Amino acid sequence: MLIHLSSWPEIDARLKTTKTVVVPIGSNEQHGPTGLLGTDWMCPEIIAHAAEKQDGSLVVAPTFNIGMAQHHLAFAGTISLRPSTFMAAITDWVSSLSRHGFERIYFLNGHGGNVATIEATFAEIYAEWSFVEEQPPFVLKLKNWWDLPGVHSLCNQLFPKGHGMHATPSEIAVTQAAYPDHIKTADYSPQIAPTGPIRDALDYRARFPDGRIGSDPALASPEHGRTIIAAAVPALLKDVADFANEVLPEV
Amino acid sequence: MLIHLSSWPEIDARLKTTKTVVVPIGSNEQHGPTGLLGTDWMCPEIIAHAAEKQDGSLVVAPTFNIGMAQHHLAFAGTISLRPSTFMAAITDWVSSLSRHGFERIYFLNGHGGNVATIEATFAEIYAEWSFVEEQPPFVLKLKNWWDLPGVHSLCNQLFPKGHGMHATPSEIAVTQAAYPDHIKTADYSPQIAPTGPIRDALDYRARFPDGRIGSDPALASPEHGRTIIAAAVPALLKDVADFANEVLPEV
Amino acid sequence: MLIHLSSWPEIDARLKTTKTVVVPIGSNEQHGPTGLLGTDWMCPEIIAHAAEKQDGSLVVAPTFNIGMAQHHLAFAGTISLRPSTFMAAITDWVSSLSRHGFERIYFLNGHGGNVATIEATFAEIYAEWSFVEEQPPFVLKLKNWWDLPGVHSLCNQLFPKGHGMHATPSEIAVTQAAYPDHIKTADYSPQIAPTGPIRDALDYRARFPDGRIGSDPALASPEHGRTIIAAAVPALLKDVADFANEVLPEV
Amino acid sequence: MLIHLSSWPEIDARLKTTKTVVVPIGSNEQHGPTGLLGTDWMCPEIIAHAAEKQDGSLVVAPTFNIGMAQHHLAFAGTISLRPSTFMAAITDWVSSLSRHGFERIYFLNGHGGNVATIEATFAEIYAEWSFVEEQPPFVLKLKNWWDLPGVHSLCNQLFPKGHGMHATPSEIAVTQAAYPDHIKTADYSPQIAPTGPIRDALDYRARFPDGRIGSDPALASPEHGRTIIAAAVPALLKDVADFANEVLPEV
Amino acid sequence: MLIHLSSWPEIDARLKTTKTVVVPIGSNEQHGPTGLLGTDWMCPEIIAHAAEKQDGSLVVAPTFNIGMAQHHLAFAGTISLRPSTFMAAITDWVSSLSRHGFERIYFLNGHGGNVATIEATFAEIYAEWSFVEEQPPFVLKLKNWWDLPGVHSLCNQLFPKGHGMHATPSEIAVTQAAYPDHIKTADYSPQIAPTGPIRDALDYRARFPDGRIGSDPALASPEHGRTIIAAAVPALLKDVADFANEVLPEV
Amino acid sequence: MLIHLSSWPEIDARLKTTKTVVVPIGSNEQHGPTGLLGTDWMCPEIIAHAAEKQDGSLVVAPTFNIGMAQHHLAFAGTISLRPSTFMAAITDWVSSLSRHGFERIYFLNGHGGNVATIEATFAEIYAEWSFVEEQPPFVLKLKNWWDLPGVHSLCNQLFPKGHGMHATPSEIAVTQAAYPDHIKTADYSPQIAPTGPIRDALDYRARFPDGRIGSDPALASPEHGRTIIAAAVPALLKDVADFANEVLPEV
Repeated sequence: MLIHLSSWPEIDARLKTTKTVVVPIGSNEQHGPTGLLGTDWMCPEIIAHAAEKQDGSLVVAPTFNIGMAQHHLAFAGTISLRPSTFMAAITDWVSSLSRHGFERIYFLNGHGGNVATIEATFAEIYAEWSFVEEQPPFVLKLKNWWDLPGVHSLCNQLFPKGHGMHATPSEIAVTQAAYPDHIKTADYSPQIAPTGPIRDALDYRARFPDGRIGSDPALASPEHGRTIIAAAVPALLKDVADFANEVLPEV
Repeated sequence: MLIHLSSWPEIDARLKTTKTVVVPIGSNEQHGPTGLLGTDWMCPEIIAHAAEKQDGSLVVAPTFNIGMAQHHLAFAGTISLRPSTFMAAITDWVSSLSRHGFERIYFLNGHGGNVATIEATFAEIYAEWSFVEEQPPFVLKLKNWWDLPGVHSLCNQLFPKGHGMHATPSEIAVTQAAYPDHIKTADYSPQIAPTGPIRDALDYRARFPDGRIGSDPALASPEHGRTIIAAAVPALLKDVADFANEVLPEV
Repeated sequence: MLIHLSSWPEIDARLKTTKTVVVPIGSNEQHGPTGLLGTDWMCPEIIAHAAEKQDGSLVVAPTFNIGMAQHHLAFAGTISLRPSTFMAAITDWVSSLSRHGFERIYFLNGHGGNVATIEATFAEIYAEWSFVEEQPPFVLKLKNWWDLPGVHSLCNQLFPKGHGMHATPSEIAVTQAAYPDHIKTADYSPQIAPTGPIRDALDYRARFPDGRIGSDPALASPEHGRTIIAAAVPALLKDVADFANEVLPEV
Repeated sequence: MLIHLSSWPEIDARLKTTKTVVVPIGSNEQHGPTGLLGTDWMCPEIIAHAAEKQDGSLVVAPTFNIGMAQHHLAFAGTISLRPSTFMAAITDWVSSLSRHGFERIYFLNGHGGNVATIEATFAEIYAEWSFVEEQPPFVLKLKNWWDLPGVHSLCNQLFPKGHGMHATPSEIAVTQAAYPDHIKTADYSPQIAPTGPIRDALDYRARFPDGRIGSDPALASPEHGRTIIAAAVPALLKDVADFANEVLPEV
Repeated sequence: MLIHLSSWPEIDARLKTTKTVVVPIGSNEQHGPTGLLGTDWMCPEIIAHAAEKQDGSLVVAPTFNIGMAQHHLAFAGTISLRPSTFMAAITDWVSSLSRHGFERIYFLNGHGGNVATIEATFAEIYAEWSFVEEQPPFVLKLKNWWDLPGVHSLCNQLFPKGHGMHATPSEIAVTQAAYPDHIKTADYSPQIAPTGPIRDALDYRARFPDGRIGSDPALASPEHGRTIIAAAVPALLKDVADFANEVLPEV
Repeated sequence: MLIHLSSWPEIDARLKTTKTVVVPIGSNEQHGPTGLLGTDWMCPEIIAHAAEKQDGSLVVAPTFNIGMAQHHLAFAGTISLRPSTFMAAITDWVSSLSRHGFERIYFLNGHGGNVATIEATFAEIYAEWSFVEEQPPFVLKLKNWWDLPGVHSLCNQLFPKGHGMHATPSEIAVTQAAYPDHIKTADYSPQIAPTGPIRDALDYRARFPDGRIGSDPALASPEHGRTIIAAAVPALLKDVADFANEVLPEV
């Protein structure tokens, strides 16, 4: 059940039997010479929508498509929220979804650079309750799609060399599977990009001139993408089910 | 050129000849018993993407899909930002796009409830420059898709009665044209919804029990939607071109 | 009953029979070569105080005299709040007045540039309640004085040509009626000012060199001002009474 | 020169010879059984306007009429900004006035409860410059009207007993002089109000049931008010002149 | 009982008999050519810890060591919070301590520049309760250590000339008593520093080239420091006891 | 060189040869039945001060002693900042230290719960520069003391079983070494605490009734603490030196 393609009475009815919602969340940012700018929000969207197709009872929110990408801002097309803005926006999403009765809110994340801010946001949200000795009416969970059980090891197996950290062949493969008409090619030099620390945008561009970190996107193929999606979908469904069924302690 | 389906070098190259970008912006909120929750962000996305299909030189950003919908929060599936959050997020989008050299940023809006906050945000952004006697390196424009030349009169002509203000047959028709597999039906009672002031969420639901304001969505059809899109697309292309070509005064 | 000229026991007593308060709100900003900088906050103050003189039961708050005028900042004497500051301040006024039991808060506005931010503020205030499924203990209303029934048409009739959008003869006439010792004159060139979009302060000054938009203030006279006030006062009293008596839906 | 009764060209011209502006600032809050709610913003306004009448070269901004009065909120008619809102608003006033070339901004304050927040605001404003090793283009000064040279001793002499700290006979006398039609009387019990610490609103009302602190407002008379104003006006003019002429150190 | 050297069950047990906590609060900022940068947070810490040593039932929180020191930022080693940040942080300390049942929170302050912001923060905190007609579950108190009964007069007696306002011999003496290994000397020129207004950092450094205001730190000695501490400790214990035992009015 | 025990001329002189500063940062929060509430800020302080003792050229700032501990708030003595407050405070520390010429700011962290917010803060700080195509004049680094080369493996070797995640024997041992007079004992039940997810404060207390996660603090001894400190000190000195000497890319 994709929220944006449903009517409110449909969601209302669905809430009678499930209290769990999945929010695909990512970033719109450069992904090297050939990766799509939307890669990091499209990957979790692709996986979540595929999961919903397989199990229509899964409730999937619209995709939170702009995240924390300040370090990529020296590359055209990147759009970033400041962490403080990102925190405010996630907070409002949670307030809205909780208002309707969603008690388990699962963020399927597609961007490593989002993790710190999302976790800080969870703490910011919980703090309001922790300061006043109340328990929030919801539980929040963050999961990167590549951390879904089995996915990371699959990616390593598919790309034993040149996977890297940004513009990885695995994420690019996923988008190639879903958007085969938008596959781009380039000569990579060096074939495997350098690695290093991530700081501000100008520092980033100086270290990683074409935007990649440690990766060789030439390894990606739509077929690889389909393999990854095929592994991620059941893993997501199981992970969400476990989260939905988790018994909370008595407080 | 859809930013999210492009690579950064492609956007970089495009920026050599255009400085204008279109941002579809809307809301995810109830649209009556049959309207899709995503209606208000999908309509500007549908129109902008159709325009880009017709003229590939149009640069379209990812869709800003969550807006200001506090009054709809009593209906399941609605997700709203507080105006202050919305303002921060739009500001960061503008900062990001301006960073890359976009000098004309055109928001194609799909939700009336967004207008006040978007306009307040423009003032907030401009104020930073106005206080220090500098001119911002960008110009901002807001246009509701139904205010594109010719569109409003077309909608009135298609739906002379029962158009209303929320969950209108015209917006529902646009989504029906684009998502024919998700057309929903219901018995509307009354056929044409009531009207009244818009305040907080509980007041809203008490006044407009099924969510509609003044509309009869049963009038919508995919065919109507195609007619509207067909009128909106050239109107958008012309309006964006006029904006791109507008000569600014010497300051 | 002007709050600032009353004691707290007087307001306390008045609250036993009325729950409605009028807040004159405006802006301190340039009004062309001859208009007073205080025009936009003095006009609603003049009208509200005249109404209170006629019907002493009307409760009028002190005037909220600084609003959102970023676009006028290139002209000396303009004082502007950023929209975010304006929102915080209005919120605190509402919290204060609500604290005392005012349940209907009516903002009589004198500045078009305030409208978007005031409406966004209403949404910001309501959102706190909408997120938690509660109804606020107050209803907020915004009315521009020129939108009081009959006033706009009267102004058009008095000034069929050259009314314009900023430093209009109607608002200048109202201040001339109230402050006859501060009538200023100048040669206007052109007689009717140009029109155009409103953006940042430097852009504004480049487009509208003497500050006016579309208006010919030479048309104003104290007599016109008295006519306008005479029409606005009963219209305000009736509009406030209607608001006070409006029956809210059961939530 | 009262800004709100001037045109922008008049202020522009005045800025050629003066860079100093006076901002009357106060609060709208209960002042005991008989004091006017506007006392604290009307007193500095009365004095500043009287000073301007005597020396038309004095530039006086509109009155900042709502300040920090959280402790008075249990009494009807009080309107308070949160300190954080107050800080934002003062900051915007300063930004606006500085934008026009005012380099010395003098706040004539009428409310003791404002002092801490105004001083914190000055530090907040200066901090932006101090962090980046720049000097602000303005100097800020806060002066309570009763601290103008000679005024405090005069008040003590006029009211050797029962002056107190809130709803003092001196401030009430000033308003009686200016608004003789709004003089109110009551039996005070006790004649001299109690004193104690100031905390939240409910605590305040429990300690000071009629709102006064340590004062006997029955001592006030319009004649006393005229005496105080007559002393304050030249003191203000001299204090502002000293501020305007103060030589800053070379940085 | 020093909180940071206790376990949570110890604090839990202590809360059964006391509801009062002392928070040493200060600033890390230049203190002239010889004063320690930590002077302003170490002085209240020294006094509070000495008091706790004498009466182990005193509950002392960790030291709040960074305050509002924007005016000292032109001297190396100074660390300052903006007032708005300082307010947020104090608010969170209060929320945390109140959460555990502390109902009387006593800030022992070591920096005059903190006073305005701390007082503004108290008002900000109280305002949340005052707006909604509730009483906070805590009372806040600010006391500068030199304002403890008897301390100020003692300092004046020890240093009848050259005490001054910043880098005073009394505060330096206190740190000399506690950190005898870190006593520094210098030739002061002039022996007694100048005085003047406090504004931004560059203005401050221009007025007070070595950082002192009005003081002659050469007068300080560890012996003086011991004398001051010996006077401050019982004064603090008594002041805290009075605060703990203060009976609040019925609201 | 400890900043708080230095004078500003000493720091000024030191800045001629080093541009690097170490900020011990932690949290004041429950550490199980026997751990000190100050554990998480005292550990990095202990290690940094020991390192400074060994190499006096190391510049160490005062300890940032309150961090993000919302999940521990159900245990007495815990003091937490909201993430948003924490971010503002860190930002001001960085602004202050950068103002003096520190170009490499190294945060030695003692609390796992701080990591996400500190990283989000770095991004918030960098974003200001990334949005405007400038490079910040500083580089920020976060290092947990247990992640210093060799330390983690040492801890695992010392405590092969029962190390756990909170109130670990290694951190408790470090405080025992430094504060031998404050060693506390208790019967732990179970001997090794349970593990689980970290959410809000009530959930935390329900899962971890005595505050520990996965640890057996009975394993700690002062001797172990000395061993750990002895390993951490040279590791810190080397890590800071590497950071100080790191060559940045040309931007």
